[in-house]
Order: sequence, then structure tokens, then C-alpha cells
Amino acid sequence: MEELKQMVLEANLALTKHNLVTFTWGNVSGINREENLIVIKPSGVPYDNLKIEDMVVVDFDGNIVEGKLMPSSDTPTHTILYKMFPNIGGVVHTHAPYSTSWAQAGRCIPPLGTTHADYFYGSIPCTREMTEHEINGDYELETGNVIVETFKDLNPDEIPSVLIHSHAPFSWGKDPEEALHNAVVLEEVAKMAIQTYQLNPKIPNMDQLLIDKHFLRKHGSTAYYGQKK
Amino acid sequence: MEELKQMVLEANLALTKHNLVTFTWGNVSGINREENLIVIKPSGVPYDNLKIEDMVVVDFDGNIVEGKLMPSSDTPTHTILYKMFPNIGGVVHTHAPYSTSWAQAGRCIPPLGTTHADYFYGSIPCTREMTEHEINGDYELETGNVIVETFKDLNPDEIPSVLIHSHAPFSWGKDPEEALHNAVVLEEVAKMAIQTYQLNPKIPNMDQLLIDKHFLRKHGSTAYYGQKK
Amino acid sequence: MEELKQMVLEANLALTKHNLVTFTWGNVSGINREENLIVIKPSGVPYDNLKIEDMVVVDFDGNIVEGKLMPSSDTPTHTILYKMFPNIGGVVHTHAPYSTSWAQAGRCIPPLGTTHADYFYGSIPCTREMTEHEINGDYELETGNVIVETFKDLNPDEIPSVLIHSHAPFSWGKDPEEALHNAVVLEEVAKMAIQTYQLNPKIPNMDQLLIDKHFLRKHGSTAYYGQKK
Amino acid sequence: MEELKQMVLEANLALTKHNLVTFTWGNVSGINREENLIVIKPSGVPYDNLKIEDMVVVDFDGNIVEGKLMPSSDTPTHTILYKMFPNIGGVVHTHAPYSTSWAQAGRCIPPLGTTHADYFYGSIPCTREMTEHEINGDYELETGNVIVETFKDLNPDEIPSVLIHSHAPFSWGKDPEEALHNAVVLEEVAKMAIQTYQLNPKIPNMDQLLIDKHFLRKHGSTAYYGQKK
Repeated sequence: MEELKQMVLEANLALTKHNLVTFTWGNVSGINREENLIVIKPSGVPYDNLKIEDMVVVDFDGNIVEGKLMPSSDTPTHTILYKMFPNIGGVVHTHAPYSTSWAQAGRCIPPLGTTHADYFYGSIPCTREMTEHEINGDYELETGNVIVETFKDLNPDEIPSVLIHSHAPFSWGKDPEEALHNAVVLEEVAKMAIQTYQLNPKIPNMDQLLIDKHFLRKHGSTAYYGQKK
Repeated sequence: MEELKQMVLEANLALTKHNLVTFTWGNVSGINREENLIVIKPSGVPYDNLKIEDMVVVDFDGNIVEGKLMPSSDTPTHTILYKMFPNIGGVVHTHAPYSTSWAQAGRCIPPLGTTHADYFYGSIPCTREMTEHEINGDYELETGNVIVETFKDLNPDEIPSVLIHSHAPFSWGKDPEEALHNAVVLEEVAKMAIQTYQLNPKIPNMDQLLIDKHFLRKHGSTAYYGQKK
Repeated sequence: MEELKQMVLEANLALTKHNLVTFTWGNVSGINREENLIVIKPSGVPYDNLKIEDMVVVDFDGNIVEGKLMPSSDTPTHTILYKMFPNIGGVVHTHAPYSTSWAQAGRCIPPLGTTHADYFYGSIPCTREMTEHEINGDYELETGNVIVETFKDLNPDEIPSVLIHSHAPFSWGKDPEEALHNAVVLEEVAKMAIQTYQLNPKIPNMDQLLIDKHFLRKHGSTAYYGQKK
Repeated sequence: MEELKQMVLEANLALTKHNLVTFTWGNVSGINREENLIVIKPSGVPYDNLKIEDMVVVDFDGNIVEGKLMPSSDTPTHTILYKMFPNIGGVVHTHAPYSTSWAQAGRCIPPLGTTHADYFYGSIPCTREMTEHEINGDYELETGNVIVETFKDLNPDEIPSVLIHSHAPFSWGKDPEEALHNAVVLEEVAKMAIQTYQLNPKIPNMDQLLIDKHFLRKHGSTAYYGQKK
């Protein structure tokens, strides 16, 4: 658990280094799958004051197991993602400007180039708008549910990000570090996609064969990018 | 008063850290409500030379009570805001590029996402154009009056920023630090809103229920964001 | 002259600090009006290697009076500006991205807000395209001539910048430091103007009364911005 | 060879300094023309860990001649460029956001101003889309072939960059340092061109005479920019 706390702390601190957050607008969590315990950033605490003992440990139902501070108000969204996406080990939420602009526009980010295809095996979806019942009910939990609904025909291991309509993105990965990595990629892809449409408003999605080539060059049993492990 | 001067000095210095100003294009003030004395940046002095003894103290009528330098030429605008908005304790003026572009375009910034709704309970208004009489009269005071007119049906405690038509923004808060915080948020919201319209020129305002949810999650008696105080 | 060389050196070094140049794409000069001698950056020398003894001194006809290096290839443009605009003491040329984009688009930058009016008393003009004769003749001198032609009904002391069609901007001022200051303002104004048109493609120019108010608040005998000198 | 390795290492490290890469999304190589040996970055290794002994040496057929790590997966593209463009000594590949956006839009970058003409003697071309056969065959080699095809009527020594459709740019030069220099220029030119079209969607290409003037002012036997060598 101490190792996980350290990893979650470092990923939270890296949010500012990668220019993904203003003030406290972002949080990273990680899960210990053996004990089903989640480590998450405390709510509203500035990153430069954050220490390992500030990290909050909660269970799947959001009960605080360890820590003196209140966990991020987005904790129920993180929790539902860990419950429903069994392979993920880290979750990142930011209000990074380019990906948030796509979320505010209510548009998914289609695959337009190999940078996208290296990480996302298809469009990065945007959720539907939430209902009155969901907003006024258990809002943060329902935010998680609407993400899960958006992925009912999508594989979260192949598309590790989502845009919440009128809100902002969530990203995930096998651990907090990979989730952070995917959040950085999402922001870069979002920036290039808006510029691409500015240059060519009618550009179709990239060739599916090229998506296959790039995604599978980096993922799965036939990957050949990087050094052999 | 020394504490207030220090807070005003630090908020002025933080303008450059948050990339809100070029040269001397911005100023922060704070008020001592017990004595109705306002501390403000001197006019045209570069931030990196600014010292606590340079801060100027003025009364509600703009008379210099303490300090060797001339106060910011925008002082009458600050003064009128303190007079008419009784709950505010700090005021920030900048020419930050995104919010200034909205002001130059003569457009209010509508609520398009939760980042906006976390801080602004509705559209951030843009003032009407000023009249010949106002421009050639007591211009900086009239700038304050036109802000107050713009808020005749709005609550400045719930919408802590305004855009001056063909000019730039003012923001405020319960103290200089919160006013600065709101100026940073305004610039970020302005950036995301321009990008959102680029992606979807017909996007309607976000759901009012979602505005309520996010604003009230952070403000008022039912707030649950952050740590309990 | 040593003082002028030092000022020209510092203004050249400040080009990178203000993010106005990539590689060696910019140069600053200054003039000693008593001796009609111009100090200018050497051609193609990176800023971080620049020393005071590298500065080149030329006369009005471009003859090298002092210095071991070749002067900037743009020297004849600087020279003609000093000859024809008798009140200026410093000239800056950059390829800063926003102002260069306006120059490439062949558009003048109209006054859209008080940031513009604080420094430029009207539109910042763009030159006409150069003729075959001018391009294939004494090109850099003709570049200066076409600037002078553009200002035949404009006052260079009130509009201290120009955009060269299909090229980039020149700015000037009473000394190299003020010329640099104006080049920074031009880039900021160019950025905000492109964003303003994006938000409101039909925005008319700002009110002439407001231009008068802001320009004359900072310039001329009735100025009241800043500290009394 | 040690000198070449050092130059390739430094050019790879400079990618981050010039903000051309996120994570490991870029690579630089250099060639020793006497021995036909190519030095290239290892695949997927972060720049801040990169050491001279990590550099990989390959021959024209991509066989590893020296080094313990796998070379960049883009090695076959680099190799074919060295084979077919006999005057080049360095190759750079990045996913820099502005040039990548043009590549994703499938558009060449036309000459719109002298910044472009100082380095590129005409439009920077975008390749055609790759075929199924090319994508599913020897993909990285075919990427090189499609670049060569794009240059069948163009001179790579006069247009030292290309955009790969739905992918990103490659740049080259007489050595790794010049290739890096051209990659930086390409990104700056790509940024200004997108802004220029935003300001004037119907702007024609710049005058061919002005292209000639600027390109030949810096290149070839009549060049007069910079210091005499």
C-alpha cells in the first residue's frame, strides 16, 4: 500500500508538470486489486502542499479506511470505474483545456492520425448529457455509471479515456502512471484534432487499416515498438 | 493594514506568475472594511520592482491617505466596486488575452461546462459600450458605474467577474487572493469557451440543473467540495 | 556610443526573453542622432553568443564604421526608417508568430480594444506587395521605402509599427528599449485581434472617442498614466 | 563515429528543448557517408535517460552494427531517405502539434511568407495516403518509399521537410543539427500558416519572385545572409 500511495502522490504531482491542471482541478487514484482498496488525492488540497500522509484510502463503497482528510469529491466516479473496468489500476481526472473543450462541445474525438491510433483504438467517446434524476441524485456515482454506459460496446482497455458531456475528461490505465500518461496523450490528441478540423473541416476519419497498424504496433502480442521487456 | 498591504503586494506579484499580464497591464487592490481604506498598486510601476512601501492607500473618494506614488489610474473603478458591492474585499484588473478577446468582441461568456459553473453562477456579462459623456467625463469612475449597471439584476457574489466592452476584464472576491483566483479561472474559462465554439458553433448553454449542482457543490451552506473548515 | 551599443545588445537579448524570435529571426538597432551613426546586430549570429564587441556601427549609407562582423542583412531597411522618421531612436524587426500571421494575410490590424489604443493611435497598417523591380533591385532598401510610402498619411510617432506584406513586422520607438516594448505590445495586440475576430467576425472598430481617450491618457501633454517624471 | 553519435544524441535531447516532442514521440538520426553507417535513437527510451552508449548503429539494410538496444521503429524510413536523398546527413521525425495537424488534414503547407521562403523553396508537400499493401507490408520502409515518390519532381535539398498523410512530419538536412533546425522552422511555419488562413482563407501563395529572393538570399552561390565563412 505504501508503494501505491507513493505512486498516486507522484502522479498527482506530475499533473502540474504536464500542464494538465489549474489550481486543484484534477486528481489521480490507484487501486490495490488484492485488497480492493483505492488510494486517492484529498479534496481541494493544492498540489505543492501534498504529502504521502495526505493520501486517502477508501474501499469500493467509498468508506474511508485510512487518512485524516476528505477524499476527492469525485471519488465515487473513480470507484465505479474500478468496479466495472476490471483491468484498470489507475484513474486520472483533469480539466485540461483542449480535452475539456471537446467535452464542452459534446463531441467525441475521432481518429485523425497515428498519434491517436498509437493509444486509442477508435474514437474517444463523449457521454450523453445526464438526466435530472442523475444530477440531483448521487451525482458523482451517476457520472461513473454514464461512463460505463458509454462503454457498453467499447473496450476500456483499448480506449483508455472518455469525455463527460459539459464537464471534462477521465483517463485510466493499468496503474496510476499509465493513466497519467494517457491523460497527457489525450490532451495532445485533442489539441491536434481541433487544429486538423480548422485546416480541413471535412477530413474523414483516418484509414482503419492504419489505425490497426499503429495500435497493434504498440499493443498486444504482435507489438514491436520499444525495447523487449 | 500592513497585512492587507502584504496581501495586495503578493497578489500583484502573482499576476505575472499566472501569465495574466504583459508589462504593467494589471493591478490588484484590497479593502479594509473597518476603516474603508483601499490598498492599491501604484500606476505604471513594473511588478519586479514592486515593494510593500510602494503600495498606495486611498479612501472611498480616491484621496491618497498614505504612499509616495500615484495610485493606479484605474483606482476610481476599484473604488466604485467596493462601494456598490459590499461583500467584496479584493479587485483585480488585467488585460489577459483570452478574457480580453471576449471583451473586445463585445460578447458575454455563457456557461458551457462545469469549470465555469464551479465559480460563476451563470453567464459572465459584458458591459454595454460607454457613451461620449462617460468617456470624456470621469472615465475610470464611469467604467465602475457601467459595471454596477450591468449587475443591476445579477449578484456580484455569484458572478465575480465582468468584461468591459472594447477593454478587458475585472474580477473580485472576498479578499485580494480570491479575486486573483477568480481572474485566473476567468482566463481559463474564456480559453475553453472560445475553443468550444470553434468545435461546435451551435452548442447551447449547459443544463441549468448542472450549473446549480456544481455551483452549489462549492458555494453556500450545502457545499461539500474540499476539506471542512 | 558605448552606452548605445549596450542598449542595442540588451534589446537584442530581450527578444528571446519576450518569445519574439526563433533562432536569429530578429534584430534591433539604435541611432546616435548627433553623429548619425547606427548600431545594429550582426547578421545571423545567435543571441546567446552575442557580445558588445559584436555590435556593428554603420552610417546612413550602410558603410561599416566600426565592427568586425557583417551587419544584419536588414540594415538598409533600418537606415531608411531612421532617415525618414526623424523622431525615432530604435528599430526592431521580428518574425513573431501572431504579427507575422497578419502580415502574411496581408491585413492591417484594426483597433479593437484599449490595449491597442494605449499604444497605437489607429490601425497598424500592412504595406502593399512589392513590385518585381523592388524585389530584384535593392530589396532591403525598397522594403524601407515601401514602409515610408505606407506612412505618407500616417504619423509614425503615433503608430509605431508596420506589417510588411508576405513578410513580418517592424516596430520603432524613441530608443531601442521603447522599440522593443512596442514590438511586444504589437504581438499581444495581434494575438487578441485574431481571437476577437474568431469570436465576432463582424465586430466594427472600437469607438474613436475611446481610442482618443486611451491614447491621450498615455501620450502627449495631457497624459496622466504612470508616475510624474 | 563517436562524434556523429554525440551529435545525434544532442539533437535528440534538443527535441524537448524546442518543444517538438511529448514523451518519446520523435527521433533523430545521422549518417556517416564514408562507411554508410547510420546512428539513431533507440526505440521508446525517454530523452532524459538517453546516453551516448544507447545510440544504435545500423547499416543501410537496418542490420544492427553496434549497440545493445533496439533502434527506433522508424529506422527503415530513415534508411530509405539516406539511400535516395544522397546529400542529406541527418533526419528528424516528430509529432510536433502544428505540423502534425497539417499532416492529419492531408494538406501541403503553401508558401505564405518569407519565413517559409527562407528555408523551403516552394510548398511543403503532404504524401498521398498509403495503400493496404503498403500498410500491411513493410510499413516503415513503405513510408520512406512514399516520401521518395512525393519528391519525384521536387528537390529534397530545397524542400527539406515532408508531411506524412494521417501521421506527422519528417525533416532533414546536411547533418543532424541542420535537420533539427529545419524541424523547428517547419513547426513555426506550420503555426503561422494556420493562423494566416484563419485571418484570410483566400490568401494566394506569396509572389514567386519574393520566394526566389528570400531562398536565394540564404542558399546557393549568391547568398549574402549571415557572416562569410
